[in-house]
Amino acid sequence: MIRRAVFPGSFDPITRGHENIILRSLPLFDEIIIAIGINMEKKSFFELSDRIKWIEQVFAAYPQVRVDSFTGLTVDYCKKMDATFILRGLRTAADFEFERTIGQINKKLNSGLETIFLLTTPDFTSINSSIVRDVYKHGGDVSIFIPEGIKLP
Amino acid sequence: MIRRAVFPGSFDPITRGHENIILRSLPLFDEIIIAIGINMEKKSFFELSDRIKWIEQVFAAYPQVRVDSFTGLTVDYCKKMDATFILRGLRTAADFEFERTIGQINKKLNSGLETIFLLTTPDFTSINSSIVRDVYKHGGDVSIFIPEGIKLP
Amino acid sequence: MIRRAVFPGSFDPITRGHENIILRSLPLFDEIIIAIGINMEKKSFFELSDRIKWIEQVFAAYPQVRVDSFTGLTVDYCKKMDATFILRGLRTAADFEFERTIGQINKKLNSGLETIFLLTTPDFTSINSSIVRDVYKHGGDVSIFIPEGIKLP
Amino acid sequence: MIRRAVFPGSFDPITRGHENIILRSLPLFDEIIIAIGINMEKKSFFELSDRIKWIEQVFAAYPQVRVDSFTGLTVDYCKKMDATFILRGLRTAADFEFERTIGQINKKLNSGLETIFLLTTPDFTSINSSIVRDVYKHGGDVSIFIPEGIKLP
Amino acid sequence: MIRRAVFPGSFDPITRGHENIILRSLPLFDEIIIAIGINMEKKSFFELSDRIKWIEQVFAAYPQVRVDSFTGLTVDYCKKMDATFILRGLRTAADFEFERTIGQINKKLNSGLETIFLLTTPDFTSINSSIVRDVYKHGGDVSIFIPEGIKLP
Amino acid sequence: MIRRAVFPGSFDPITRGHENIILRSLPLFDEIIIAIGINMEKKSFFELSDRIKWIEQVFAAYPQVRVDSFTGLTVDYCKKMDATFILRGLRTAADFEFERTIGQINKKLNSGLETIFLLTTPDFTSINSSIVRDVYKHGGDVSIFIPEGIKLP
Repeated sequence: MIRRAVFPGSFDPITRGHENIILRSLPLFDEIIIAIGINMEKKSFFELSDRIKWIEQVFAAYPQVRVDSFTGLTVDYCKKMDATFILRGLRTAADFEFERTIGQINKKLNSGLETIFLLTTPDFTSINSSIVRDVYKHGGDVSIFIPEGIKLP
Repeated sequence: MIRRAVFPGSFDPITRGHENIILRSLPLFDEIIIAIGINMEKKSFFELSDRIKWIEQVFAAYPQVRVDSFTGLTVDYCKKMDATFILRGLRTAADFEFERTIGQINKKLNSGLETIFLLTTPDFTSINSSIVRDVYKHGGDVSIFIPEGIKLP
Repeated sequence: MIRRAVFPGSFDPITRGHENIILRSLPLFDEIIIAIGINMEKKSFFELSDRIKWIEQVFAAYPQVRVDSFTGLTVDYCKKMDATFILRGLRTAADFEFERTIGQINKKLNSGLETIFLLTTPDFTSINSSIVRDVYKHGGDVSIFIPEGIKLP
Repeated sequence: MIRRAVFPGSFDPITRGHENIILRSLPLFDEIIIAIGINMEKKSFFELSDRIKWIEQVFAAYPQVRVDSFTGLTVDYCKKMDATFILRGLRTAADFEFERTIGQINKKLNSGLETIFLLTTPDFTSINSSIVRDVYKHGGDVSIFIPEGIKLP
Repeated sequence: MIRRAVFPGSFDPITRGHENIILRSLPLFDEIIIAIGINMEKKSFFELSDRIKWIEQVFAAYPQVRVDSFTGLTVDYCKKMDATFILRGLRTAADFEFERTIGQINKKLNSGLETIFLLTTPDFTSINSSIVRDVYKHGGDVSIFIPEGIKLP
Repeated sequence: MIRRAVFPGSFDPITRGHENIILRSLPLFDEIIIAIGINMEKKSFFELSDRIKWIEQVFAAYPQVRVDSFTGLTVDYCKKMDATFILRGLRTAADFEFERTIGQINKKLNSGLETIFLLTTPDFTSINSSIVRDVYKHGGDVSIFIPEGIKLP
């Protein structure tokens, strides 16, 4: 059986933290789908097409990683893609509480789905997309927070 | 003296978690008022009349439980209703921090008011109204998260 | 039905934090049993007879409060005393995690038993028996941490 | 070398918690700049001019404390003001997680900048500007939450 | 490449929580070694031979699961067994902090080793070996906390 | 007035985390006393003379840092040394809860004493003396956890 994982998120934009989790989980899965969840009610900061392009660029050398976008529930998307694992990074104890809630709800909605967690590497623990956007909006240099080679507009 | 408790919230909608806390605290109080706080600045997802109707339906067999709605501070509402206890459920450590803050503020505003906490039963810990709304909006089945017999529109 | 609560602990020694939780929960219960758990494997710092005497002294004016000691499981002691509530104070988020675990285990062992939590008042949040013993051992003045009138040896 | 600290925030409005942190850190710094961050995307509740006036009033007797406002990144503002310390109060474990993230990001953006934390005094732990606004909007009495002498409109 | 994971612990005794984590992670790994760490300085409560026997009994039907014991560092044991993953269950936010520390240390000691986390199922969150021992010592019934079929002495 | 801080701990042994906190707080204080608390009831792992020697070695180039040892309460030691600040590093949310408790107790015992916190740098967050001892006892290489140049026996 293929071990296929979905790594859901908004990736608005992808950070070095995301990149690091994906790279470290490569040996664990045969296929990883980075799935950009589209929230109808909340406009993203960066364009979907840009977010997809940046992720493709970062993982160009890894054929087992691909990018997709979806609307609706993550559990429904996983079923559609025949993925039995959700991959998530844990950064802080606050993250943990949130992820536990989401993970248990997902399990109730689709009991065949297992969420697998990796802990962020210390150097990336403080980085998340919202902080990257904040620094970016205020004109700060975000290059150390996003994967090498990515150029924000 | 009557032991009267107010269980404040938005109940948007009521969940099995809320139901469980109320049922477990029945032996503790002579009267429990489920009090829907109306936030003038934030529109609720479900109509107030529906939220009231669902709660009435769930506790129809329990005369010591009644439903009401209020605007303004919870402490003022408690004073008006001559209730000396606030009842709250605790789900997570993050909840705890939030509730501690609110509980201490309420005590400063009305020192005769005591907040009583019950911990959620494991099976209901992951359920809250915001997640129910989220699953509902995405077309998922929420029946396992809300009390039996409740039909969302 | 009598609302009888057990407030279990080692009370080694009783602190102002304990005193405060008991006093605030008096309106909630008809009877409160302060139950000193005797741990066969771990010697207490103060003598059991002293710990009992101090508690009796603190609550001399409150006939609905009494002191007892017990060995074995708290749930078994509650059953024996015909108490349907356990009363506990919550100080910190770390406390919360611990108490949640214990509360859920107690509920599994005796499903008719409900644990009721009060949050400590800010001024007493930092006080616990272990810190009182520590200050005491180092010759510090512990009078502000223990109920008025208590004289440690 | 002058030990100059920036105490950034929105101070919407200043609370007794803020006042307490500043007063307690006076012996640590030669100069403290209370810096009101202006968020272009989020309207404040009270006017900037009022917020500045209230802070000036509270610290009128302390020449080493001054008030300012800024836009952009806190780290850039600190550099401009030649301040090598950021001063922050820690209230809860949730605060801690948030502050750790911000502190580490600030250090990455300007490695010469050190964030110094004081823990809030128990009595002020539950007070923050958002709760003050909430009580104020609902017509409650906020005088015990804000520094003496401050009159909200 | 074989995906081999080590699930280290003292299993003193194995609980339903342990059993659940192993069963849920079976689809993720080709081989799981349940590795009982022997602590020279701290005597275990149950005999090593019993602890091994119980685990063997629980997973008798799963050839990809085996039991072993080891002394020394977990990272050294993993290297010896040619395992590139450590499997751990996360129960609470307090667990999270502890596991993060251990996981980061293990990564510093052996950077090729990845720790994979699953979150405990709500019903098992409150169960750990130390609580099982506690209930057992006090003569309580622990059968609902340990895997079916296990008989403690 | 001299800004003199006490950095209390057991330093059993000193770690890169300790070293980092001291170095980063040098601009904040005129004098830092690294104070090894001697616990009469708990034997340390390394000899006091070694622990002192290692710290002296690490800070040989910094005349404003000195080492001392003390018995009794930290607040009494601070008073004796005429120090008005306690310096502490915060690593995790669990640390935070513990430190808050200790800090508030110290403030009650000596209200003129202020505890100042710095957050650990991500790379050192997972390191503490107890983990260093653990790796050391099991024959692991601890050189990356302790300051450069220190040779454990």
